[in-house]
Amino acid sequence: MAKSKFEYVRNFELDDTCLRNCYIVVRLDGRNFHKFSEQHNFMKPNDNRALGLMSRSARSVMEELEDITIAYGQSDEFSFVFKRSTTWFKRRASKLMTHVASQFSSSFVYYWKEYFGEHPLLYPPSFDGRVVLYPSNRNLRDYLSWRQADCHINNLYNTAFWTLVQKGGLTTTQAEERLSGTQAADKNEILFSEFNINYNNESPLHKKGTTLIWEKVNETTTKQIKRPDEVETEITVTRTRKKVTSHSCDIIGEQFWEEHPDILESDQC
Amino acid sequence: MAKSKFEYVRNFELDDTCLRNCYIVVRLDGRNFHKFSEQHNFMKPNDNRALGLMSRSARSVMEELEDITIAYGQSDEFSFVFKRSTTWFKRRASKLMTHVASQFSSSFVYYWKEYFGEHPLLYPPSFDGRVVLYPSNRNLRDYLSWRQADCHINNLYNTAFWTLVQKGGLTTTQAEERLSGTQAADKNEILFSEFNINYNNESPLHKKGTTLIWEKVNETTTKQIKRPDEVETEITVTRTRKKVTSHSCDIIGEQFWEEHPDILESDQC
Amino acid sequence: MAKSKFEYVRNFELDDTCLRNCYIVVRLDGRNFHKFSEQHNFMKPNDNRALGLMSRSARSVMEELEDITIAYGQSDEFSFVFKRSTTWFKRRASKLMTHVASQFSSSFVYYWKEYFGEHPLLYPPSFDGRVVLYPSNRNLRDYLSWRQADCHINNLYNTAFWTLVQKGGLTTTQAEERLSGTQAADKNEILFSEFNINYNNESPLHKKGTTLIWEKVNETTTKQIKRPDEVETEITVTRTRKKVTSHSCDIIGEQFWEEHPDILESDQC
Amino acid sequence: MAKSKFEYVRNFELDDTCLRNCYIVVRLDGRNFHKFSEQHNFMKPNDNRALGLMSRSARSVMEELEDITIAYGQSDEFSFVFKRSTTWFKRRASKLMTHVASQFSSSFVYYWKEYFGEHPLLYPPSFDGRVVLYPSNRNLRDYLSWRQADCHINNLYNTAFWTLVQKGGLTTTQAEERLSGTQAADKNEILFSEFNINYNNESPLHKKGTTLIWEKVNETTTKQIKRPDEVETEITVTRTRKKVTSHSCDIIGEQFWEEHPDILESDQC
Repeated sequence: MAKSKFEYVRNFELDDTCLRNCYIVVRLDGRNFHKFSEQHNFMKPNDNRALGLMSRSARSVMEELEDITIAYGQSDEFSFVFKRSTTWFKRRASKLMTHVASQFSSSFVYYWKEYFGEHPLLYPPSFDGRVVLYPSNRNLRDYLSWRQADCHINNLYNTAFWTLVQKGGLTTTQAEERLSGTQAADKNEILFSEFNINYNNESPLHKKGTTLIWEKVNETTTKQIKRPDEVETEITVTRTRKKVTSHSCDIIGEQFWEEHPDILESDQC
Repeated sequence: MAKSKFEYVRNFELDDTCLRNCYIVVRLDGRNFHKFSEQHNFMKPNDNRALGLMSRSARSVMEELEDITIAYGQSDEFSFVFKRSTTWFKRRASKLMTHVASQFSSSFVYYWKEYFGEHPLLYPPSFDGRVVLYPSNRNLRDYLSWRQADCHINNLYNTAFWTLVQKGGLTTTQAEERLSGTQAADKNEILFSEFNINYNNESPLHKKGTTLIWEKVNETTTKQIKRPDEVETEITVTRTRKKVTSHSCDIIGEQFWEEHPDILESDQC
Repeated sequence: MAKSKFEYVRNFELDDTCLRNCYIVVRLDGRNFHKFSEQHNFMKPNDNRALGLMSRSARSVMEELEDITIAYGQSDEFSFVFKRSTTWFKRRASKLMTHVASQFSSSFVYYWKEYFGEHPLLYPPSFDGRVVLYPSNRNLRDYLSWRQADCHINNLYNTAFWTLVQKGGLTTTQAEERLSGTQAADKNEILFSEFNINYNNESPLHKKGTTLIWEKVNETTTKQIKRPDEVETEITVTRTRKKVTSHSCDIIGEQFWEEHPDILESDQC
Repeated sequence: MAKSKFEYVRNFELDDTCLRNCYIVVRLDGRNFHKFSEQHNFMKPNDNRALGLMSRSARSVMEELEDITIAYGQSDEFSFVFKRSTTWFKRRASKLMTHVASQFSSSFVYYWKEYFGEHPLLYPPSFDGRVVLYPSNRNLRDYLSWRQADCHINNLYNTAFWTLVQKGGLTTTQAEERLSGTQAADKNEILFSEFNINYNNESPLHKKGTTLIWEKVNETTTKQIKRPDEVETEITVTRTRKKVTSHSCDIIGEQFWEEHPDILESDQC
């Protein structure tokens, strides 16, 4: 049973190192989540419990894995951006994407109860992943813009669709026909004129998705200390700590990036 | 917010299709499982609850994903073999490995309670994965033999080590020193002469690991039917169903493969 | 001007090692050879000088590079098969294909005069290459069969086409129309009934292309030696040497492979 | 002999598209050029005929293949830089590198006589190639700087070495020992104090290598025309044409890049 006789099989492993100086994006997508959402009675068009659980799982990924500087999620997908200079796992694509997929999935089950309470998880869900490299800041921002534009387009459609069904009394087939061929302006108009809904006032979480970044946060705690004169007293201690923070804001324009200049690394490198 | 302006970023995705007519092996390894096993008080040298949960999660992978014909696991690792002719997910390496990693990880948390009862899972664990291709039956069998030989070598060492500690009263450092430089025969001898343990009689699960395959199983159920004369009667119905079955046997020699000729596809193709 | 400051750029090189235990095929194709053949007045439908030069260049590749066991060429293409166990250039795809492309191209110019005499080469031609891996003997043989079937189909078409033009007096447009939609049998019939040409009797070189392999050849030389009695005498010395030999035979059926059992390595490895 | 039965083998070709928005560098290296240079009696330390032929071949590559914006060569190597936005050959690595290797090699033989006259080429030489991607202007410039620094280091060594041999009367072994462990300053000093050679005055071609770029050049030709009064007269016509120009200057510092701002594309894309 000599191990060495068989060990030659290790040489069949191929190298999949990611090109240096590129952002490494890992995107996860839920597998069969249309069916999953129906089986678990997700609210339509958006289920805040599910969105919360997705974000919680993404935070778990950011806290456990090194060098993810920003993550963006919407619907049943989440993208994680490793900094372009990362050397985590020697930049091996397979290690990076399987770790993200694994940590996200175990977290999704682990934290289910925090978001769905006694509503049971019927079976273990699955997410697939992929790796994409982006050589420049422009490319990376355009990737994130692409996902956020996708969120907007889908959410406007879904909001109009489910309003027609839930408030307008249409069947799903009728709603589909009604929206077929309409532009964004038409959907806004339907919502406003027929249902008195101003889409702009809808929840930013639904319109913009969720952006997670690392931020320095001041944490203030109170502490009992004994003064030299033996009298007990209370003091407040403020410490700065890096923490994952969640945002539902526009990330297509300049403002977000100007406010958070540390997310991107210079193209001049 | 035109999506199309950003959509060029899709072209940065690179193709990672696996070479045709090769077995596709996805191997998962637990991340930081040494620490994980200590934090969850795993029994030494083997924790049957943990091994059971690993197998349960692997079965979940086999039942959910297509075209896995055999899986082999030991310790905190599990290997999944897709048949060489599979076209699942168009043979895209990233999809195959992330799906396996995701399904395994969510199952691990989902089924935790079935194996650990009220012993709580402290945090969501993570597994990393990789893809390796094997062009011939010989190569694939040598891969599986390599893993099973590894299982044997580790288990013999661990059995000797923990016997010296648990029954022999040695510290872990002393046990390590005692075993340093010993051969398999020496470890067998220590176990036998000092502790009256015949390693050959140890649990096959620990010595051989776990092999999962698909097998046809006859399932007999009883059914109430009404005869033409209106009298109720009970009949037994036997149906043949494919089921994942678990084995702790040698997979290095010929016997296992002769008994299960359907696992491998011909090299003549 | 310290080199070390810049040397980090070496790390951008990515590994492109070919999977072990697979045949490595490098195929070259002439670039813009339609135009090249017109500018150099190649005979139609086949120019034996050009075919000879292609084979000569391919032989140069086989003699200079290690581990090519068979090469097959037709028209302006040539395929080179490295044995499945080769470790030449550590199986790096880029090294293998650029070396083949380079050696073939420099040989094509170098040996031009041997085949075209005073007919001048007007400019340096170019060939592109690619690497394809085949895991089994069946796959490799099917690859070679594919190329030889392609040779047959093209040659039958070209023979009919140029006979219609050269002997039948049709314009190229008329010949094209005449052959449009015809089957192999139709083309054979045209050749036979209209031009009394039996395609089966056409040159094997044109119908089957060129297959190059290594064969042991006996080489007999005569040598002057001095006998003990000081009388000079002539003896013949026969030595066995490996040599590249050229064949224009069928390589789709079994016979060729049975006659040359050393070309393929066993699938059982 | 149906082709279709075998055509499945095409699916074994794997995609090797280069990541978008990266510079694609193809570097060629002479194979066994140490031996080649001895067999062809190259002058030491530099043979201007050989360097001229290398540049001529590189120019042929630039003129025949699209989208190479700069090439740099020294000794028996040449690097070709495709612009980062090139879509030539769909950015397929194998096509790009084999075409460069092929065109260079056929040109090397084709133009041999222009540089070596009646000095015969003994056999067709070979060059191997590789592809490396660089995501930023900084990375690309550092790559070129790396090669030029390498040129400088090697040329200083070779100049000192061959001066010690050719003018100092040392054997090659003695020269090697004399230079062992010396710094750049030491070699400069040996050349200056012992042989009255100021290295700075050596040929820029040898110290800096050869840089090829595309430049707009005014070409003035004279033309005979007939004036309205039927009198023949001569006029000069100036046309602007893009042409490959050769430079032996520093490309590490800023000046070259400021003078030729069109070589690089913006990192902002």
